[in-house]
Amino acid sequence: MAAQQTRIGLAGLAVMGQNLALNISEKGFPISVYNRTTSKVDETVERAKREGNLPLYGFHDPESFVNSIQKPRVIVMLVKAGAPVDDTIKTLSAYMEKGDCIIDGGNEWYENTERRQKAMLEKGLLYLGMGVSGGEEGARNGPSMMPGGSFEVYKYIEDILLKVAAQVPDSGPCVTYIGEGGSGNFVKMVHNGIEYGDMQLIAEAYDVLKSVGKLSNEELHQVFTEWNKGELLSFLVEITADIFGIKDDKGEGYLVDKVLDKTGMKGTGKWTVQQAADLSIAAPTIASSLDARFLSGLKEERVQAAEVFKSGGFSDILSEQVVDKEKLIDDVRKALYASKICSYAQGMNLIRAKSVEKGWGLKLGELARIWKGGCIIRAVFLDRIKKAYDRNPELSNLLVDPEFAKEIIERQTAWRRVVCLAVSSGVSTPGMSSSLAYFDSYRRERLPANLVQAQRDYFGAHTYERTDMEGSFHTEWFKIARQSKY
Amino acid sequence: MAAQQTRIGLAGLAVMGQNLALNISEKGFPISVYNRTTSKVDETVERAKREGNLPLYGFHDPESFVNSIQKPRVIVMLVKAGAPVDDTIKTLSAYMEKGDCIIDGGNEWYENTERRQKAMLEKGLLYLGMGVSGGEEGARNGPSMMPGGSFEVYKYIEDILLKVAAQVPDSGPCVTYIGEGGSGNFVKMVHNGIEYGDMQLIAEAYDVLKSVGKLSNEELHQVFTEWNKGELLSFLVEITADIFGIKDDKGEGYLVDKVLDKTGMKGTGKWTVQQAADLSIAAPTIASSLDARFLSGLKEERVQAAEVFKSGGFSDILSEQVVDKEKLIDDVRKALYASKICSYAQGMNLIRAKSVEKGWGLKLGELARIWKGGCIIRAVFLDRIKKAYDRNPELSNLLVDPEFAKEIIERQTAWRRVVCLAVSSGVSTPGMSSSLAYFDSYRRERLPANLVQAQRDYFGAHTYERTDMEGSFHTEWFKIARQSKY
Repeated sequence: MAAQQTRIGLAGLAVMGQNLALNISEKGFPISVYNRTTSKVDETVERAKREGNLPLYGFHDPESFVNSIQKPRVIVMLVKAGAPVDDTIKTLSAYMEKGDCIIDGGNEWYENTERRQKAMLEKGLLYLGMGVSGGEEGARNGPSMMPGGSFEVYKYIEDILLKVAAQVPDSGPCVTYIGEGGSGNFVKMVHNGIEYGDMQLIAEAYDVLKSVGKLSNEELHQVFTEWNKGELLSFLVEITADIFGIKDDKGEGYLVDKVLDKTGMKGTGKWTVQQAADLSIAAPTIASSLDARFLSGLKEERVQAAEVFKSGGFSDILSEQVVDKEKLIDDVRKALYASKICSYAQGMNLIRAKSVEKGWGLKLGELARIWKGGCIIRAVFLDRIKKAYDRNPELSNLLVDPEFAKEIIERQTAWRRVVCLAVSSGVSTPGMSSSLAYFDSYRRERLPANLVQAQRDYFGAHTYERTDMEGSFHTEWFKIARQSKY
Repeated sequence: MAAQQTRIGLAGLAVMGQNLALNISEKGFPISVYNRTTSKVDETVERAKREGNLPLYGFHDPESFVNSIQKPRVIVMLVKAGAPVDDTIKTLSAYMEKGDCIIDGGNEWYENTERRQKAMLEKGLLYLGMGVSGGEEGARNGPSMMPGGSFEVYKYIEDILLKVAAQVPDSGPCVTYIGEGGSGNFVKMVHNGIEYGDMQLIAEAYDVLKSVGKLSNEELHQVFTEWNKGELLSFLVEITADIFGIKDDKGEGYLVDKVLDKTGMKGTGKWTVQQAADLSIAAPTIASSLDARFLSGLKEERVQAAEVFKSGGFSDILSEQVVDKEKLIDDVRKALYASKICSYAQGMNLIRAKSVEKGWGLKLGELARIWKGGCIIRAVFLDRIKKAYDRNPELSNLLVDPEFAKEIIERQTAWRRVVCLAVSSGVSTPGMSSSLAYFDSYRRERLPANLVQAQRDYFGAHTYERTDMEGSFHTEWFKIARQSKY
């Protein structure tokens, strides 16, 4: 038991919760912890002792847990999104008082957070939805945190958050007040969508290098290690390099080759794609990464389809092209980087569209800053994004920032070469090619959408605008076409 | 006034409603019509006289309208989706009796229909959601209709629907009972998503032929006229041919060149993409057509972006390649057809996934059959789809039907050439290239998803399966990598 009351509480002691609690106490903030399954409480207390007698106090019942925290009480919840969150709120709020606050640190749908904020406010309680990225390791040693909701509560615990967050030299702790309502969850959701995109783009780079370039795992390990020293320096490229270096402990060869090609998912990528559609934001790179996960899941169907096309004379890789390995590696690096710019442009514009809709006033450059450390998408690249928004906070699209535009121009020939090589080899690169299509659509003054709009006016009288005069026009296309025919 | 009671009623007399009412009465079914703005009632009565003294009777108040219809009364509503539907139901149902039925013929979100079905049932009233495709012209001369909800009501008005629907030689009227609940609206929604895909693919064919192949409108008119005689024979290809032949009545040249390249939309495409994400169905062709509409809407941003890249030495079309026109036309036709197969495969699988989820028992072959005439996507192609499902109702994907597989194999080289040509020319073909990526992902036994799953296990302990043994595995990637590093 704590002699004095603790500064903060944490409920939900799965690995993420345990690690975040240990992180907080290690930074000098006495913390109370609680979990419905009490063995987790004891486990956490044990770890706190083992990891340096940290000021962490465990409770087996919610009432004494709540009462152990100094007022106004702040309790961070790390439980599964959805019903478990509602259950935990119900359990804890029974003992909480006016001015106390609950913070949901899970990957919750932002509207659920807003619903709960309202319900809590009716009881005089405050509520925050705080995205936490960085996985287990980040939670323990410094995550990126995206708190949204009551600014008052944020200020009250800012000292804790600033110390607990990942620290990035020259740009500070990876946390900031995001905005009102469910903005913290929304931003975390898009962060995860971007993460899907990054992972898919890396997987495509791997596929092209392995399937077309015939690189071995050793070579791939070298390539990604090398890439992680330059513009692609990032957590995901680093762990990719690690992965290619790990031998199978259950058999011959490398472990990565034994991993089944089926990718799981948890919902935030799906929400990102659905929100993009809702807000009329093109996000094809992120969408294609979600589709790639769906298609990866159809393993049995794919095996059968491969059989069907093989018997039709179709090889897995269509043409065994002789490629210059060094040149291919260089091209793929450039294609990956250029595609990444497109993916982040989409994610950032989605966040802005929501911010405008909800009046959240989100600062895109600040978001790039707090993603520089702690989280899964951390990368030096994010510093370039931050600087782009520093140069012009109203930037309509990252693609037209002068620095990014220059980088794309330098890489576009390589990018096109890689996509063409993949297309003619039968290796699908949905992320890279949809990124390129996004770029080539966005940079073109004139798209073939005139034809689509003419079709819509033809069959549905939806009207059209003209390039040379103001107004809305309708043409009796069918009548005129018939007249000229007969 | 009708001397006797009429067979059916129709409320909502905008052009679609007027046309459908005239169609019904022309087929010999006396019909009552009503509209809140009564001038529309008089207009419709006037048209019925003019178009051959059709048995159509107008009413200025809802009560006498409802009372004029024989029991059990069936009233088709053609009003804007959303609140106007609820308002109309409220107005009409006040005078309706147990066993009467309202049919919503609009593009309604299927859940709204299911909500209304429940609410109506509590009053003893029945309710159908019926997708109607074919635009104004289809409504007048024969639409494709997708009624979902009470089978009893469907049977009661089946004689009307069978005569009113478009008639296709050898395959009958373009209507069938779809299924329970909101299945009629859902199927119509996916139909519209597929329509988005078709239109986008045609627009890309146009863009490649015009921007790279330098075809004139006269040549495009010729090409699409020719295409409409073969495997691409369809309403959309036909009207596209028409469009290229129409001169601008307000100036020099062709009208299509004066139409602004901004495409509007009404929601069903967006819902289709969101539902695909919800049901874990990859639908990249449909999604890319939605994105293309979004990007078309950013006309001013695109003009500015074009300027930014022009000053960086970037032309609209990157390389002026000398192409063999005849060969290009032939390649593009094949690319368009192969992409279309992918798009329909996605739409059909989306419908099946929903049918499984809801227990609707939808018959995909029947849907292809009723889309063969009347609707916007009508095409000889749909007969091939119907036959594929006749051959194998459990077909997991259209791509692996032996006939379609053969057609794709024959076209894939041309398809890849077109996408590569577009990529190297800087012409975006998001629909064709995402279709190709869909194909190349689906037909591959092994995708690079093993890497993504390894990454997920690395940073989130999400576990993975193995190719060579059963079970769920977790590896301490970080620990092993660190050990081998130091």
